[in-house]
Amino acid sequence: MKIYADNAATTAVSDTALAAMMPCLREFYGNPSSLHTPGQLAAERLAAARATFAKYLNADPKTITFTSGGSEADNQAIRSAAALGARKGKKHLISTKFEHHAVLHTLEALEKEGYAVTLLDIPEDGIVTAEQVKAAIRPDTCLVSVMFANNEIGTIQPVSQIGEVCHEAGVLFHTDAVQAAGHLSIDVEAMHIDLLSLSAHKFHGPKGVGVLYARRGIPLVNLIYGGAQERGRRAGTENLPGICGAAAAFEEACENMEAHAAYVTALRDRLMEGVMKIPHTALNGDPERRLPGNMNVCFEGIEGESLLLLLDGKGIAASSGSACTSGSLDPSHVLLALGRPHEVAHGSLRLSLSASNTQEEIDYILKELPDIVSYLRVISPVWDELERGQRPHLI
Amino acid sequence: MKIYADNAATTAVSDTALAAMMPCLREFYGNPSSLHTPGQLAAERLAAARATFAKYLNADPKTITFTSGGSEADNQAIRSAAALGARKGKKHLISTKFEHHAVLHTLEALEKEGYAVTLLDIPEDGIVTAEQVKAAIRPDTCLVSVMFANNEIGTIQPVSQIGEVCHEAGVLFHTDAVQAAGHLSIDVEAMHIDLLSLSAHKFHGPKGVGVLYARRGIPLVNLIYGGAQERGRRAGTENLPGICGAAAAFEEACENMEAHAAYVTALRDRLMEGVMKIPHTALNGDPERRLPGNMNVCFEGIEGESLLLLLDGKGIAASSGSACTSGSLDPSHVLLALGRPHEVAHGSLRLSLSASNTQEEIDYILKELPDIVSYLRVISPVWDELERGQRPHLI
Repeated sequence: MKIYADNAATTAVSDTALAAMMPCLREFYGNPSSLHTPGQLAAERLAAARATFAKYLNADPKTITFTSGGSEADNQAIRSAAALGARKGKKHLISTKFEHHAVLHTLEALEKEGYAVTLLDIPEDGIVTAEQVKAAIRPDTCLVSVMFANNEIGTIQPVSQIGEVCHEAGVLFHTDAVQAAGHLSIDVEAMHIDLLSLSAHKFHGPKGVGVLYARRGIPLVNLIYGGAQERGRRAGTENLPGICGAAAAFEEACENMEAHAAYVTALRDRLMEGVMKIPHTALNGDPERRLPGNMNVCFEGIEGESLLLLLDGKGIAASSGSACTSGSLDPSHVLLALGRPHEVAHGSLRLSLSASNTQEEIDYILKELPDIVSYLRVISPVWDELERGQRPHLI
Repeated sequence: MKIYADNAATTAVSDTALAAMMPCLREFYGNPSSLHTPGQLAAERLAAARATFAKYLNADPKTITFTSGGSEADNQAIRSAAALGARKGKKHLISTKFEHHAVLHTLEALEKEGYAVTLLDIPEDGIVTAEQVKAAIRPDTCLVSVMFANNEIGTIQPVSQIGEVCHEAGVLFHTDAVQAAGHLSIDVEAMHIDLLSLSAHKFHGPKGVGVLYARRGIPLVNLIYGGAQERGRRAGTENLPGICGAAAAFEEACENMEAHAAYVTALRDRLMEGVMKIPHTALNGDPERRLPGNMNVCFEGIEGESLLLLLDGKGIAASSGSACTSGSLDPSHVLLALGRPHEVAHGSLRLSLSASNTQEEIDYILKELPDIVSYLRVISPVWDELERGQRPHLI
């Protein structure tokens, strides 16, 4: 059995998305900036894709900028707010300790450039509160950036309330919605969102396409200078096949959101219930206020990497956290922020499901996983010490 | 008849490129950063694509960074050289007046950040000389950036000689090879190239993929912060389908380069010969030292935009210059740099051919174009003045 349970890392391109890409890869290959008919046919498709994103975010098409992905959108959103803040003498930014590195590393770069950054602590349930944000806002705060849903533990943040707090204080609010878009309903007006980033390949669209929503009146700074594409905000010939695939995937995801969420949540809950029967296992993040497909646990006494390799041997594709940092030997910054000790954080497993997963697959995982955990514990010196009582169980 | 003669703006994706993309859009959709089998299968394809670019540029795969396009590669190349120069107290950059805006606007941004920039004049034949570069190099020069072939007039620059001059002076050499790659042979070693940018959609690869070659030892600065993809030099999940399509297109273009160049040059010369029979027409750029598919002329007394629209009405897709600036009412900065007066520069036409064009298409263009030019001159008040001798002919 081959099971793909790493949909938070990336998803398969849907038939709908591929069907939308193909005409742009074949007959409509014109450059949308060209005046001639092939160019204008491409430009029409670009406009339609922009309108689709605008519709499902409850935004104006003019507020939608296409980028090469979620990371670029995060970078541009934060740098734009920082530049605008600096012009008003406001050089303080607030974010959280468990953001994606596209946010955290951009903030680190800004710190080196003279900005002040406050990273909020993460409560045990993995959900930052609007009160925390409110307490951190200073007179010189120009931006609050809190992700919509965490990429590792899937917890959903109270975006609406945070947005409200920000707007009451006159501070811009950015949310990295890379994990949420297509899975949770987003309304930039109702949720008081000024800047929002998303990535197509997280909801069965193609890789290489992101969207940056920026409320009207927020000038974007260029990361890439050159031609006047995207109303001068992002140079480079538009990746039309990717953009059209992204729009089709987003529409499909939004139209099927409720049904998919119900189906995937049921699968996930069945999975979570079974996995939590394994002794000395801790669920990471709130059990309910999390993305439908996300399960993230720590198994005491084992190494996540070995677990992934043995699961892979059984045909199960999983991860220990973010794919972006899989080359790193450090434990997840998200789990550390959550308060997990280093040795526990090392034994993490993220299974992220999509509507393509089945109950049979869940049952297969639940058949194989406990044996693999047991085996890894048998060969683990740490587990031996735990069992002999030479060190206390932490979970 | 439908004729696409705007291959310098963008090209159709080749069957070979599409065939390389499809498996990555379907079965090999894993994230190359993931440890599991789907991820590693993707990582293998990514490595193979990198090796393909390295092979045909005569470079090491480790020197190849994938970007979202040529503009991003240009931006990152120049910013990296500038940052490296600043660390050594060298803050002078040399380029030319007819570079692509991805280069020129990046240089403008650097000027605002305290760098000094010298833009070389363009000789009448559209070919910058190594002597010009040599004369402009100062003790504080950190980078020379000269395009491999111009995007509007197609003239090929003496890259080898310029590279040699740079290396003798201990200055880094970047070349924007967006128009040249896949059409002209490139050898980064023999040509003394330190940094090179290319874009896949200019040689029948997909849009949204660029390559930045950076010689070993040149640290790249990040335009996009986040995950550790591309050895930490470019964050964001890799656009694997695009990258594999780009590599397949590049291999195909390089393997067929001589045959395509011979075929396309013959077509272009036939076209050029016919077009130059139209009175008061000037060829822009050297007639021979230009890209095989490029023809760029100015017709006195007419507006390029009207010409394009009428050609489009006859099914001929052409451009007046760069697609990236087609929204602008200003005449081409390239033609102005070449010394064309404003009123002449406005009447430009670029026809850029590929190996998919045919002799029948050329004959059709040569049948329609003279009548369209004549018609536009009949309705042109400027032409009327020229014909009445109220103002002198400029060409």
